[in-house]
Amino acid sequence: MAPSEEVIGISGSNSTAPAPARRPGGRSARVRERVLDAVRVQLVEHGYDELTVDAVAARAGVHRTTVYRRWRDVGGLLADVLDAAGDDGWRPRDTGDLAGDLTALNQEVYAALTERPSVTAALIAASFRSAEAADALRRFWDDRYARCEAVVQRAVRRGETPAGTDARALLVAATAPLYHELVLLRTPPDPRLPGRAARAAAGAASAGAFTEPPAGGA
Amino acid sequence: MAPSEEVIGISGSNSTAPAPARRPGGRSARVRERVLDAVRVQLVEHGYDELTVDAVAARAGVHRTTVYRRWRDVGGLLADVLDAAGDDGWRPRDTGDLAGDLTALNQEVYAALTERPSVTAALIAASFRSAEAADALRRFWDDRYARCEAVVQRAVRRGETPAGTDARALLVAATAPLYHELVLLRTPPDPRLPGRAARAAAGAASAGAFTEPPAGGA
Repeated sequence: MAPSEEVIGISGSNSTAPAPARRPGGRSARVRERVLDAVRVQLVEHGYDELTVDAVAARAGVHRTTVYRRWRDVGGLLADVLDAAGDDGWRPRDTGDLAGDLTALNQEVYAALTERPSVTAALIAASFRSAEAADALRRFWDDRYARCEAVVQRAVRRGETPAGTDARALLVAATAPLYHELVLLRTPPDPRLPGRAARAAAGAASAGAFTEPPAGGA
Repeated sequence: MAPSEEVIGISGSNSTAPAPARRPGGRSARVRERVLDAVRVQLVEHGYDELTVDAVAARAGVHRTTVYRRWRDVGGLLADVLDAAGDDGWRPRDTGDLAGDLTALNQEVYAALTERPSVTAALIAASFRSAEAADALRRFWDDRYARCEAVVQRAVRRGETPAGTDARALLVAATAPLYHELVLLRTPPDPRLPGRAARAAAGAASAGAFTEPPAGGA
């Protein structure tokens, strides 16, 4: 039961997929991939409390000293899962308009948070246990939101939203209701949620809600 | 270091405040108040891992069997903290317009999430450890959002937002960016956040973003 691939969520390579004959990076990269797969599977199957270096090493089939030497502890393992997830070519989709782009983004977030088991949800939960995981999660999201600034730049160029729109504020407004409902409020999934939150944020952006007043103004 | 009073956040009575000569409810209510105070202080000072029935009983100065009998375990204690927090007369402020009401609401959320220590943040973190706390947190928030529906009803009556506006969706859109930035992304507090998220949601609501199309429509 390996976690599926997710992009705006937290990606994991799929340990049950057939491995290519030769992976780039050699033995060290292969060990890393096996170990990080083991972290993801152990986390979603057994939770943070049973996520130990020894359990990960056993599941990955590598010696525990290899794991201790390279990752030190569970915090180091979780941080590397998140760093590896961010080390991809993900870009937001270009659907031709702002509401469409934000809806596409939200559909990816929604899929990542509602799949069962959800690696994304498990890593968010783990971020409340491990400061290293929390830092890595913030880095991961900062990078994802930075990549999504392209969505806002395109919208500005098309004249859908004013120049000077705060891209991060708009992107957080679009995606935050999904995290709030699905992660914190634990509301049953509602497939209307991604589109509704996206359209609301796009409409607010077009009306200038994310454009800061000029310095010195009110 | 007792947690301060918070309303949309999760309220705690302040154990260092002078106690009134006679509290309503008699001895049982006084024991409950002392025990729940002890839970809040223990949680924010030492975290979930050191939140045990024994530690709570010792801090509250009551016998451990009293706590076991009435609350059974840590999950029962956390659920009762949240149920007690919801058992108040809190109502959203009426400022005269939708953006103002949502800003006032968000300022309370912001204060609850950024105070140090934050009982609200500690209880959210605990909700990832205890299913009972998670259930109680959802009940607490569901009740708070239900009370806030008055904000949306007033806005509809004033003609600021269309009839048929989904109050919950609007309220979640207004507040979610605060939880996302401050709890999940762990972004340093930005005092512009409450007003910006409130105005964006109010603007989107006025434009009909939270009004579902009629059944049978697209």
